[in-house]
Order: sequence, then structure tokens, then C-alpha cells
Amino acid sequence: MTPEEFRAAGHTLVDWIADYRAQLPNRPVQADVRPGEVAAALPAEPPEGGEDVAALIADLDRVIVPGLTLVQHPRHVGWFPSNAALASVLGDLASSGLGGLGISWQSAPALTELEEVVCDWMRQLTGLSPAWSGTIQDTASTACLVALLAARERAGEYSAERGGLQSVPQPLIVYASEQAHSSVPKATLLAGFGRDNLRLVPTDPQTYAMRPDALAAAMALDVAAGRRPAAVVVSIGTTATTAVDPLADLVPIAREYGAWVHVDAAMAGSALLLPEYRWLVDGVDGADSLNWNPHKWMGTVLDCALLYVADPEHLVRVMSTNPSYLRSTVDGEVTQYKDWGIPLGRRFRALKLWFQLRLDGVQAIQDRLRRDLANARWLEQEAEATPEWRVLAPVTLQTVCLRHEPAHLTDGAELDAHTLKWVDAVNASGAALITPSLLDGRWSVRVSVGAEPTERSDVAAVWKVMRATAEER
Amino acid sequence: MTPEEFRAAGHTLVDWIADYRAQLPNRPVQADVRPGEVAAALPAEPPEGGEDVAALIADLDRVIVPGLTLVQHPRHVGWFPSNAALASVLGDLASSGLGGLGISWQSAPALTELEEVVCDWMRQLTGLSPAWSGTIQDTASTACLVALLAARERAGEYSAERGGLQSVPQPLIVYASEQAHSSVPKATLLAGFGRDNLRLVPTDPQTYAMRPDALAAAMALDVAAGRRPAAVVVSIGTTATTAVDPLADLVPIAREYGAWVHVDAAMAGSALLLPEYRWLVDGVDGADSLNWNPHKWMGTVLDCALLYVADPEHLVRVMSTNPSYLRSTVDGEVTQYKDWGIPLGRRFRALKLWFQLRLDGVQAIQDRLRRDLANARWLEQEAEATPEWRVLAPVTLQTVCLRHEPAHLTDGAELDAHTLKWVDAVNASGAALITPSLLDGRWSVRVSVGAEPTERSDVAAVWKVMRATAEER
Repeated sequence: MTPEEFRAAGHTLVDWIADYRAQLPNRPVQADVRPGEVAAALPAEPPEGGEDVAALIADLDRVIVPGLTLVQHPRHVGWFPSNAALASVLGDLASSGLGGLGISWQSAPALTELEEVVCDWMRQLTGLSPAWSGTIQDTASTACLVALLAARERAGEYSAERGGLQSVPQPLIVYASEQAHSSVPKATLLAGFGRDNLRLVPTDPQTYAMRPDALAAAMALDVAAGRRPAAVVVSIGTTATTAVDPLADLVPIAREYGAWVHVDAAMAGSALLLPEYRWLVDGVDGADSLNWNPHKWMGTVLDCALLYVADPEHLVRVMSTNPSYLRSTVDGEVTQYKDWGIPLGRRFRALKLWFQLRLDGVQAIQDRLRRDLANARWLEQEAEATPEWRVLAPVTLQTVCLRHEPAHLTDGAELDAHTLKWVDAVNASGAALITPSLLDGRWSVRVSVGAEPTERSDVAAVWKVMRATAEER
Repeated sequence: MTPEEFRAAGHTLVDWIADYRAQLPNRPVQADVRPGEVAAALPAEPPEGGEDVAALIADLDRVIVPGLTLVQHPRHVGWFPSNAALASVLGDLASSGLGGLGISWQSAPALTELEEVVCDWMRQLTGLSPAWSGTIQDTASTACLVALLAARERAGEYSAERGGLQSVPQPLIVYASEQAHSSVPKATLLAGFGRDNLRLVPTDPQTYAMRPDALAAAMALDVAAGRRPAAVVVSIGTTATTAVDPLADLVPIAREYGAWVHVDAAMAGSALLLPEYRWLVDGVDGADSLNWNPHKWMGTVLDCALLYVADPEHLVRVMSTNPSYLRSTVDGEVTQYKDWGIPLGRRFRALKLWFQLRLDGVQAIQDRLRRDLANARWLEQEAEATPEWRVLAPVTLQTVCLRHEPAHLTDGAELDAHTLKWVDAVNASGAALITPSLLDGRWSVRVSVGAEPTERSDVAAVWKVMRATAEER
């Protein structure tokens, strides 16, 4: 494709995207396709090529859009917000158009240095101290794995440079809340610790936050048995209820045993853009690493996960390579982000944050976050004031965890069946998307407000369809 | 930013990208900035926002483009080709515009199923058997790590589900060519094996390919000492010289000892699109995993790395999670790509391959690859026919490894100094970009043909500037 062909096709595609976004509210939220249906609508054999962009766009309309659950829909309150702010989409287009290759500083100085600058802007905007150094990873899952690898090598005294984890005599232990995201056990297993060496620490029955006394007890027990605490993953905003582990209380316990503290604020980190929510990470200066995802509530288009570390030298020691074909005369003077994460080749991801911050601005983002927080509180109050509905956990951020508990359903299994049935019906209707989630062994419902176009009227509409569906006899 | 604002700004940015690509050949290849210069040109504090896209584009021109090494430049022959075909840029724009969230099949059925379809198209186009199942990862580094984690868990009998790598009694060993890419040692260390358990197997002095006898001897020695071979990474197209390890000879040795075979064809995989180059992976049906990167020579915009596995059930067993908030009624009927890699949240990457295949077509890509192969052979012949120049390794693909060896430089250190000096001078001139690389302990030069716009005349121009600079007295 020549630049002139790109120009024409690009204009067509930009128009299509603008129309798509404008018409989003009129579509069903949840994809209405059966397994295999999208694949069956596509040729089993590769195309010859030579089509034009109109053919592709026709297939976007015919096959792709009906096969997507629309997470930017105003009545999408499922999982967590996953916004894709159009300003950041432009930044990502600039990234692809420029085709920058981030394999070293030399291959793309601007890619490296804009990332440094933007990570520092984000540090300032979230109130972190200048002691933190940041980088962009793809997701919180990867950031957590990187943090646990760094923790493993600190606890194992850089065994990777010798006999590996098998040569470390003391079992290394990872601690996280029993409410921690599934990526935490996954990263623990991938890093080689093993499930037997993962302690899922009990949480407070009211707040669902990790109990410091339980962490201290678990650590003391492990140490007494000859095991070595390697890492504590502190969840700031859990997936089920956005519970906030008490970081300031947990840090001294972890540090007493020399354990790495990783702060997983994947979702809740966006709230740090609001000064009144900085308390979420009180105590963070005693932690070793912190991750949060602008690609969630803040709305930078996927994938954009910020990882901050207190000791970048240690991270580089664990993650670095130095092949001859990437050496240059400026080594030592520059940041080599290849040594801050797993991939060698990196996209120019800083552009999408840069565009969003400069075009939309922080004020507009803050206003939107505050709107969502108020809307969640409104829903909480509505639910609390409504018979047979129960709010199941503190509404700390923009996620309301609730359940319809009709008086005639006294059996837990029947209540579960009721919950799953009405939630499925809401989702299948296409009118809204909500997520069922297990809490204390029972199915509950999460309403996670925060899609970019979601206004109070949308939350009210979601609540109305929830009530109508659940309360139907 | 509203859809209408996006429409206007998007048109402006598309025009800018078309102009940028059209004018690329007139710019210097290598970024001409000193460390810190880009960062110094940007504000240290975050912006207020509210700017328009013209301000961003002005800064792209002023700060970003001068700070990028232009890897799509017709005289970029450094590292490996890193094309960003404009058809794939459109596909990536569609991905960002759609904002699909790949955390489960349910969250984006079309994202999942188009990835299945496109991975299968690519399988057919590269002549792999239907026994292979594919997924898209970000890079070869990550794909290699995933493969080694799968290998570790097979050799360790799923120790991750119990006491982890520390509970595995026999040391687990990884084998790779001494010419393997730096990502292979890195992945070995990150996976926890440890450097002492990595065997860098000697290569043939003529071909730089792994010696099967040396692999067999190393494995026999380890087994005799009570260690367990876990994985062999076979390099198809090494970084220094595009050497091709003899897969068909290595597979039976690896399998005799039960080791996982991962085929790293990150760069060379593009050549599999040409039937006459399928011999590169003769024997692949005995391997366990294979990675290659469409984002290199083939030209899908970064990041797009294909990972194929022979036993997806095993991969899923190693990489899976099953949190309640991602369960759905279709589980078991659909592919959950979150369980095929590290990240939970995945971009809609299949779109960029889909666009490239349908707009540009395979024939055009094949023609371009064959053009590059012919241009490399032309350069090889030119160098061989030129006094004081030496081609240092077989030109298997599109990379020519050579050195200017003037008769008066008989000392190795002096020759190294000469090589680095003239290469730096060529790169600093902006006329071309070539990569110095260590081969047999001496600096050599890699000319890696394959940027999308590179024609014979460009290779001739690169060769001319190389000669003029190196031969200057």
C-alpha cells in the first residue's frame, strides 16, 4: 500500500470509526453470537489480497462488530471499565504510522525518552514521590510477573546467574490477599514459586481487605519453619469489590521479613489522579513496585500498564541482556527499557498517553472519574433503599457489589441460581452488561461504573433493567 | 474527544502519516540526537490539556521524528527489517478504534475467533501441518519465555501446582546454540532455570549452526550427571548471520531425552511464506512450539509474534486461570487465549494481519521477500568480487555479514577499531544504517536487507557509502 492509497483508505476508516463510536449507544452491549459463529463467517483459507478498504469495512460491520461486547458502551458496567479514549486512539495511530522500533535507546531515542517523560508526568499526577522510576508494560499480569521475578531474584540472591531457583535452599514464599486478582497466583506459578508457596492471606469479613495480623502470623509461621518470605502483593482495589489492602500497615510487616512489596492498583490507580483518593496508597514509599493501568478507567487505549520501581538498578540486573548488536557508544548514559521488562521489541506506547494528556487534559479526566464515583454512590443508595436488594461490600470506588435477595429464597443454592439467571437475562437482552462474581462462596453482581459515555441516566437505566429482570416473578 | 472531533483530527493525522511515509527517503536514517536531548525538548511537568492535534503534530515534527531511527527507510539495513506496512497500520487503527477487550471469549468473541482464523491462515501460508494451533504474542522474547515455561512444567511434572521449581530434585537443563538470540538466555533465566543450567552448544565454524553431535554430547553428559534435559531452543535464522540450526537432525536427539523443542524463527519465519524456503524448518513436525514474527520482515506493524504449539492443552494447563468473574456458559466450547500467554487483557491484534493479507495480499509480500533475497545475493557477490572485503558467513537469507579487511591491518584489535570507526561514520552520516556485531570474537558488519521500500538501487547506494567510508585512508 502506497502512502497515497493509505491516505484515501485512512480517511475512510477514520470516518467509519467516528460513526461507529457515535452510534455505539444504539447497539446491544453484549455480543450476540454463538461459539464458532464468527469463524464460520470467515473463509477457512487465506485471501488472495488486492481487496480495498471498503471490503474490510463491510466485514467489520457484518462480522466483527456484532461479535464484540461493547465495553465502551454507556451501559457497559461489566468487569472493569476499559475505555479507549479517542485522543489516545490518535496517539496509537501516530505510533503505528511512525513504526518506531524500541529495541534500544539508539533504535528510537524519542520512544525511550518520551516514555521517561510521560511516566514521570503520570508519577506527578498521581502524587508519587520522585524516588519512583516508571516504564510502560502491556498489562498488570505482566507487570506483576516482572515484579515477582525481581522479588524472586532479591530473595534468592540472584540465583538466576548461578544455579537458578532449584539452587535456592530455603523455600521462597509469596503472600497476597485471598481476594487478589487471578493474575497474582498465575504470576506466582509462572515465576516458579509453586502453589504450595503461595499464601492467600485471609481478609476482613466487612472490608475484604487483607488482614495485617493474618499476614504477620503467616510470615512468622513460614520463617519458623525455615522458609523465606519473598514478596507480598498488596491489592489496591480488588476485582470482586475494589477492596483496599491497608498498605501502610502491611509494609512494615513485609519489610521486617525482607519481602518485596508489589502494589497492584491495576484498576484503582486511575483514582490516584484525584488528590482526595491518594490515601489509597498511603505507605507506598515503603513499597518496591507499583502497577496501575491507564488502559482501564482512565481510558488510554489498551495496552498501557504503568510499572514503577523504587530500585531500577535491581530490576535491570534481573531483566537485562547486552548482545553485541545492540551495544552503542551511549550505553550507560541512557535508559534501555528492554532491560525493564520481558520483550526486547517495544511499541511507541508513550504516544497514546501523550496525546490523551495533551488533547483531553487531566481536568477533563478528573471530572469524568468524579462523575463515575458519584454515580456509583447514587446506585449504592438506591440499592440500599430498595427492599430485597443488598449492597455486599463497601463502595470504595466506582464498583457496587450487590445482590437481589428475595425473601422466599432462603436456600443459598437457590439464591445462586436466581442470581445467575437474572444476570444472564440482563446481559442477553443487550440492554446492559453486568458481571456475576463469587463473594464468600455465593454469586453476587458487580456493577462497575466508568465507561467514558456513562452518565447518571445510563446508570439509572441499568438499575431499572436489573430491578425489572430480577424482581420479575 | 467526541467522535466528530476525532473525525477531523484523524483526517489531519492520516494526512501527516501519508506525507511522513512519502518523504521518509529524504531524511537521515539514524536519529541525530544526544542522550537527553528529546527529554529536554519536552516540558518536565504534565500539560494542562485542551491542545489541538495541530500542536501534537508540530511536536511530532519538531521533537519526535528527529529522535527516531527510521527503520522503514530504504537505506536502513540495520538489526533486522522492522516494517510497518501501511495496510497493517490501518488494521491496527481499526483495533484501537474498536477498543476490543480480549480478556475472555465472552468479552470479545470476534477478537478470539479472528485470531484463530488468521493464525490458521498463516499456518497454511507457511506450510505447517494442521496439527499446529496458533496464537499471537507481542514478541519473540515473550514467546520464548512462554515456551520455556511450558517446557519447565513438562519436565518438572507440573511442579508449579505443588512446590514449584524448588521442589524438582533433578536440575533441569536448557540447550541453545551459542549463536542464539539474547532473548533465549534471558528467558532461561527468567523462567528460573539459572545460567549454570543453560548450555550454549557449539556451532559449526563455517555455517554457525548448532552441531548435533555437540548437542548429543552435552545431553549425554548432563543425563549421566543426574540432570534432566528440559528444552532445546533451535534457532532458525540467528541474529548475527541468519544461521539455520539443523532442526531435522536436532529433533530426534531432543526427543530421545524427552526435551521440549522450541523453534525460534523470529526473523526467518517470514521466508516460510516462500515455498522454496520451507526447508528451513524441515523436521518441524517433531517440535513442540514455533515462533516467528510477522512484525519483522513480513511487515505487520509491531507487535505481532506468532506462537504455534503442538499441544495446546498442555500450554493451557500451564498458563490458565479461571476466576469466577470470567466464567461463562460457553466455557469448554471456546478458545480462551488468556490461557495461552502471560497477559489477561489482549488487544485485537489479528486485525492488523487480516488487513495486511486482504489489502496487500500474499503475492505482493512474496514478491517483496524474493526481491530482498536477490538483493542480498547481489551484495554478497559484489563484496566477494571486491578486494579487501570478505563475506564472513553463508548468505542464507537476506542478511550479509561482512568485513573490510585492508591488508595493512594485521592486528585483530586494530581491525576491530577500524570496523567500529567506519561503521560509526556510515551511521552518523545518516546515509545508511548498518549494525556492527561480534562474530568469532571480532567485530563484523551486518547488512540486513528487507525494509519495505529498499530496491536494488538502495542496496547499491548503501554498498557505495560503505566502500567509500571504509576504504578512505
